Amino acid sequence: MAVEKQEYVKAIPPKENLSEWYTAVVLKAELADYAPVRGCMVIRPYGYAIWELMQQELDRRFKETGHKNAYFPLFIPESLLQKEAEHVAGFAPQVAWVTQGGQETLTERLAVRPTSEAIICTMYAKWIQSYRDLPVLLLQWNNVVRWERSTRLFLRTMEFLWHEGHTVHRTAEEADQEARLILRIYQEFIEGWLAIPVLVGKKTDSEKFAGADYTYTLEVLMPDGQALQAGTSHFLGQNFSKAFGIKFLDRDNQEKYPWQTSWAVTTRLIGALIMIHGDDRGLVLPPKVAPYQVVIVPIFYEDQQNVLEKARELAQRLAGRFRVHLDDRPEYTPGWKFNDWEMRGVPVRLEVGPRDVAKGQVVLVPRVGNGKVSVPEAEVEVQVGRMLDEVQAQLFKRAKAFLDSRIFPASTVEEVEEIMTVKKGFAKVLWCGKLVCEETLRDRTGASPRVIPLDESETGSCVVCGQPAGILVYYARAY
Amino acid sequence: MAVEKQEYVKAIPPKENLSEWYTAVVLKAELADYAPVRGCMVIRPYGYAIWELMQQELDRRFKETGHKNAYFPLFIPESLLQKEAEHVAGFAPQVAWVTQGGQETLTERLAVRPTSEAIICTMYAKWIQSYRDLPVLLLQWNNVVRWERSTRLFLRTMEFLWHEGHTVHRTAEEADQEARLILRIYQEFIEGWLAIPVLVGKKTDSEKFAGADYTYTLEVLMPDGQALQAGTSHFLGQNFSKAFGIKFLDRDNQEKYPWQTSWAVTTRLIGALIMIHGDDRGLVLPPKVAPYQVVIVPIFYEDQQNVLEKARELAQRLAGRFRVHLDDRPEYTPGWKFNDWEMRGVPVRLEVGPRDVAKGQVVLVPRVGNGKVSVPEAEVEVQVGRMLDEVQAQLFKRAKAFLDSRIFPASTVEEVEEIMTVKKGFAKVLWCGKLVCEETLRDRTGASPRVIPLDESETGSCVVCGQPAGILVYYARAY
Repeated sequence: MAVEKQEYVKAIPPKENLSEWYTAVVLKAELADYAPVRGCMVIRPYGYAIWELMQQELDRRFKETGHKNAYFPLFIPESLLQKEAEHVAGFAPQVAWVTQGGQETLTERLAVRPTSEAIICTMYAKWIQSYRDLPVLLLQWNNVVRWERSTRLFLRTMEFLWHEGHTVHRTAEEADQEARLILRIYQEFIEGWLAIPVLVGKKTDSEKFAGADYTYTLEVLMPDGQALQAGTSHFLGQNFSKAFGIKFLDRDNQEKYPWQTSWAVTTRLIGALIMIHGDDRGLVLPPKVAPYQVVIVPIFYEDQQNVLEKARELAQRLAGRFRVHLDDRPEYTPGWKFNDWEMRGVPVRLEVGPRDVAKGQVVLVPRVGNGKVSVPEAEVEVQVGRMLDEVQAQLFKRAKAFLDSRIFPASTVEEVEEIMTVKKGFAKVLWCGKLVCEETLRDRTGASPRVIPLDESETGSCVVCGQPAGILVYYARAY
Repeated sequence: MAVEKQEYVKAIPPKENLSEWYTAVVLKAELADYAPVRGCMVIRPYGYAIWELMQQELDRRFKETGHKNAYFPLFIPESLLQKEAEHVAGFAPQVAWVTQGGQETLTERLAVRPTSEAIICTMYAKWIQSYRDLPVLLLQWNNVVRWERSTRLFLRTMEFLWHEGHTVHRTAEEADQEARLILRIYQEFIEGWLAIPVLVGKKTDSEKFAGADYTYTLEVLMPDGQALQAGTSHFLGQNFSKAFGIKFLDRDNQEKYPWQTSWAVTTRLIGALIMIHGDDRGLVLPPKVAPYQVVIVPIFYEDQQNVLEKARELAQRLAGRFRVHLDDRPEYTPGWKFNDWEMRGVPVRLEVGPRDVAKGQVVLVPRVGNGKVSVPEAEVEVQVGRMLDEVQAQLFKRAKAFLDSRIFPASTVEEVEEIMTVKKGFAKVLWCGKLVCEETLRDRTGASPRVIPLDESETGSCVVCGQPAGILVYYARAY
């Protein structure tokens, strides 16, 4: 079995070679595959099942907080996209254009939506008349397209899946509260479900969403020390309501422009999940989003029927409380199955062999750590539940320790440079707020300002110009 | 209140004027709206909630029968679409083409998927090697685009939502079984959940899916006597596996082409639902897919607080078992609310006023029939459940009686013509199987062959040529 194991594992490069490791894991675990269209991917059933679990939980939280789902068209006429000046400038270079329908050449090009503000605001202008119509709290789960030059499975693809929320409010305060509520939902979800710690805060002006007043962001640290933007929640101010003519009659009988937000997370979160938790043996999935939380591997010797029956009985017992898979394929050895399910990241393996059956016990093996234990059959639900909780907690703890170990204060440009090239991680700097300093730091280090934290503050002197500075910024190189 | 009611209802034309009535109901019940893109629609939250309930139930049935969800790209390179000759001939005239990406003019046009056989089969050719890889049972919930000339909210739109299943099997028998399994799932769902009776069977060759060997269909009769294709399940034979080079090594060590199916239902089912069950007062929703099954309208007089509290208590009690909405808006009268929720098709209204509170009772009013009753508060869950079941059953019964009353046997072309123009419904005819007879009947009556039933057979002479005929066909004019 040792030989077999070695050969199996050889198929995946060590995680040190992060880029090759990542692609190998995505392909071998059958999460996704390259599509025969440049820059696009196919999400295979195992990867899609993760997305469905993510959707269910987020959708539950959105509905609980009063949001509703809707669906807006895929196509946006060019003239609508052009209504908000910053917005079109930001997105036009990335748009795929439909110019022909059937035999007909279109008189106006249709953008395949890169995001849906333009079409949704057009409808809001029609639907919203009075303060009684507010707030409007809608989102859609859909596909969007951005014409990207270089792409990478899950992390950056021309087409991706996401939800996009679009809300409208009477006051600026309400809109900011909404943007922060969503930020909190995202943080709770990404940390609590995906077991990925995040830095939360605001973007600098140069990094905000095209058309927003400001953007809240959640930033993740990847194993190579680069940052990934995991989700954003934008305070749009009145930019879109003015551009699209959304007006309402307020309680005081005055016609006013409402305040808006928009927000999104995408299938790129699956890429973060893979990179952050995986190891040399392959994928590691947090139990809360694992399509199979427990895989049962029966160990056959002579006493086959007995063991199989027990495995089936256990699968049935556990199925009420967990997502369970019984791997009863006769053509593979238990050793092969162990490796295969480890590579696919299943959080807990349950082994049952003839001796276990005789003793009334089963063996539980967590995907991470050294927690292999024999437990009495009678306790199997409780013990599986406990082990899943432990795996979930351990993954977060491990990722948090990594993040914490890769945040470095820096007070000179040289230090930031060293953090980017040698230490690899976030440089925590003070900034005076001038664009020229931001640009200098970016040019000299290859890092970009990722996030201005919400819950920390400091004063001192600017990392670039040395003038008095009161803005704390985390810089990193970015995906 | 009588005056108010009358005025409210005036806003919807009588159902006799089916086309105007339909559009008015869709817009006023806020199911959907016209989008600022020709032929596209916006599905509003109330309409989308119906779609979500439909999705949940179908998805549950698909998963229960071993199917898994995946996601394939929106774009299909033109060269792939052209691989299966009949398929491209059938779909090319309806394709929206992307020809530009960012600033770049594409060297090959990309079709916005009208259906995904071409891209999915390309992946299947890569994934499938051995009989051990079969069956493959995948589907995706997604959007597709067909460049239609004339469109109608839900019933025919350029972009629509659907699922598309794509399965691959070792043998022709297995593939046919799969196509029939799906047909049965669709029938159970459309009849049991949407309360719409269907005629099930096969399409004639001229009406089958472009690229299929044969197509199973479910046909619905609309109130104007025209037929609507509600769902299809295609036996693709080996047409796509040969065109796309999908091969597997079978148990006998021979390389073979597998057998395939594909199948779909779309958001057009929502259009059928609206047209079939609605009445002069507006929408009527079958309880199983009603976003709100029960609306609670408190009736305020002096004793306001008392009544409101009771209404809230009831809403909370019922929320565990039903989808409940409490309409406690102070700015509308109870009478206005009654009309509004009737127009929106909520199956059961629960009224509670001061006298009801005093007597410990509530009033339940079903959306259809004369079943208004006072019931003791203690029985409210049971009585609401019973009334919902009754509404569900009554809607199906009513639609079935209508369908049955509109099926007319015909033995001459003139009779078919009369059925199309005067009686309005399905003409049940015998056909010899010759294309020329099918075309003659189509040309002379405007009707098309909708379905060859699976569970009926007859012999006699062809309705057109009078020669011996053994094929029973239902003809109708079609949406």
